[in-house]
Amino acid sequence: MKAARFYAAGDIRIEEVETPKGSDEKALVQVEWCGICGSDINEYVQGPMSIPHTRTGPHPLTGDILPVTLGHELSGRIIQAPSTSSLSPGQAVIVDPRYYCSSCTACTSSVTNCCQSLGFLGLSGGGGGFSEKVAVPPAMLHQIPDNIDMATATLIEPLAVAWHAVRCSGVKGFKGLPILVIGGGPVGVATVFVLRAWGADQIYVSETARRRREFLQDLVQATFDPIEVNVGSECRSLSNGSGIGLVFDCAGSQKGLEAACDSLRFHGLYVNLAVPKSAISLPAMYFMRKELTYKSFLAYDDADFKATVAAFTEGRFAGVERMITRRIALEELVEKGFKTLLQNPDEHIKIVATAGELPSRDSTL
Amino acid sequence: MKAARFYAAGDIRIEEVETPKGSDEKALVQVEWCGICGSDINEYVQGPMSIPHTRTGPHPLTGDILPVTLGHELSGRIIQAPSTSSLSPGQAVIVDPRYYCSSCTACTSSVTNCCQSLGFLGLSGGGGGFSEKVAVPPAMLHQIPDNIDMATATLIEPLAVAWHAVRCSGVKGFKGLPILVIGGGPVGVATVFVLRAWGADQIYVSETARRRREFLQDLVQATFDPIEVNVGSECRSLSNGSGIGLVFDCAGSQKGLEAACDSLRFHGLYVNLAVPKSAISLPAMYFMRKELTYKSFLAYDDADFKATVAAFTEGRFAGVERMITRRIALEELVEKGFKTLLQNPDEHIKIVATAGELPSRDSTL
Repeated sequence: MKAARFYAAGDIRIEEVETPKGSDEKALVQVEWCGICGSDINEYVQGPMSIPHTRTGPHPLTGDILPVTLGHELSGRIIQAPSTSSLSPGQAVIVDPRYYCSSCTACTSSVTNCCQSLGFLGLSGGGGGFSEKVAVPPAMLHQIPDNIDMATATLIEPLAVAWHAVRCSGVKGFKGLPILVIGGGPVGVATVFVLRAWGADQIYVSETARRRREFLQDLVQATFDPIEVNVGSECRSLSNGSGIGLVFDCAGSQKGLEAACDSLRFHGLYVNLAVPKSAISLPAMYFMRKELTYKSFLAYDDADFKATVAAFTEGRFAGVERMITRRIALEELVEKGFKTLLQNPDEHIKIVATAGELPSRDSTL
Repeated sequence: MKAARFYAAGDIRIEEVETPKGSDEKALVQVEWCGICGSDINEYVQGPMSIPHTRTGPHPLTGDILPVTLGHELSGRIIQAPSTSSLSPGQAVIVDPRYYCSSCTACTSSVTNCCQSLGFLGLSGGGGGFSEKVAVPPAMLHQIPDNIDMATATLIEPLAVAWHAVRCSGVKGFKGLPILVIGGGPVGVATVFVLRAWGADQIYVSETARRRREFLQDLVQATFDPIEVNVGSECRSLSNGSGIGLVFDCAGSQKGLEAACDSLRFHGLYVNLAVPKSAISLPAMYFMRKELTYKSFLAYDDADFKATVAAFTEGRFAGVERMITRRIALEELVEKGFKTLLQNPDEHIKIVATAGELPSRDSTL
């Protein structure tokens, strides 16, 4: 079958690989769609990072080492399922791509997303969504209704990342709370959709790209360009002087962190969802004078993923399909996917690819 | 009267100033003892920092500007009290040195320690403990029993700083929780005493100075030199492999932060109590992979100070008098106080000074 495999930075190859097989432990899934994640882009630019390579050795849970098939935001349909599972051929599914060991102190405390050996299908081996088929344990599969658009369903994975962060922020009531989202890329937009689902109604997005601000305009209470306005002043003005209670940093820049710390009110919470592109210097005096809290979150746990599937199915992310701004064929993954996102990052939110038949529509933001 | 006044970095003068007067709003207090705080040392080395100066203008709450009298860890006795207060002449008191505006959003939310205009007697004007007398509103005075050693009572202020941080850590049970304290200086030792009062029984202190480790030996479960051992490995070993749940950084160094992040287990909490001496770079991947939390705390609020006075009076900080390693006369403040702490920081925990008669004993660590 065809698969897009990562060999090195700048070297992703669409090639023929052995087709995986279903077994008593694994269901065989026909991949329908798979989204390109920011972490895929990071690997393409400066990888291998999370991908197991010569210095790290094979991933402890998959036993694989590069080249690995990419893609961890995938939807598909069951081809063959273990007889002990509740899955049946034809069933639409979404994949929770995490691998965890179930035995470390984090896992035995049900904090599986902090597993010492945490890995992801599509990064750590065991196949990936940028291919025709994957074989995965039924525990990693979540059934979704047949009538759901399978490309849109791939958004459940990034939405689960945001869901986890919003839930773990520990905030009890989102209604009326001034919230600043830094960065209107895929993670920022997913965070906005989840915040709306949790009842937030005072969301402000700081984003430099005009097209992204336009995309967000009817989803949030305010958008602004941090180059044109003073973020702290703008946020205080928007919040009637009180300042921001909760920040989601979906950009990971020094300037964003400092602007966020300025805009936060005393006892404010800064949630980091970005992999910083360079060393981040902590504005210590802001943290001390306002007794701020900094938290970072990683992926999601079983309950988060399940809750996100349920919320998605119930239509609580209305309009989320607009996040998908381009649908491409697997063969076009590098040229029309990775390179487009690198060269014109502001033109797109999410690009999804399929090894199957490409529908005629190709919506671009 | 005599007072030690800050003019500029390296320029503290013991000089004659006008004696303050009691009034209908302020009680007149005869200062007995006042401790030298790390922030006093910081001002002496690179001030004015918190002290109001030409560029900042007078402090909004005191109206004062340098030269200001130093000293905010002070005990004393009432000379004269407003008739409306419950204070009476001869009464032993400890001073809560904070000035806050009572009208900003932090103050009206009872988070007075995050007041936008927060100041301190002994830094921001309005007199200070390194003098013979101070005139302060009765609300800033807490009565203490007559039989308490008045030099030891000055420790209530730094203990209140630690109390606030321990309380606000949000930890529900300290018993059995592996806790790492970085730095065995005055703030670190105060934190150890407060942690013990809150039931902590797995306290490890990372400290480079042998004499400080010796001082702490019978107060905590383990002390070690971070230059000689790998802090992360040592902490995992001490905690049966689980890692640290809670860190109090009372040193403020990059190495300490990184070692702390290594030693923390997933969902661990890092509490910063230090004013970093240089820019601190956040170990972002540790925070992400283990979902760590970083919090900074500042001073204490009314309830913390009151609770610390009560705990002190009830004897819950048994042995705390050992923190005072030298008692000096006000005239000796610079030479035997500030310069000693700068030149031999590891030889002392806390040095206290008095404008009154000096007792013959002079205990040195």
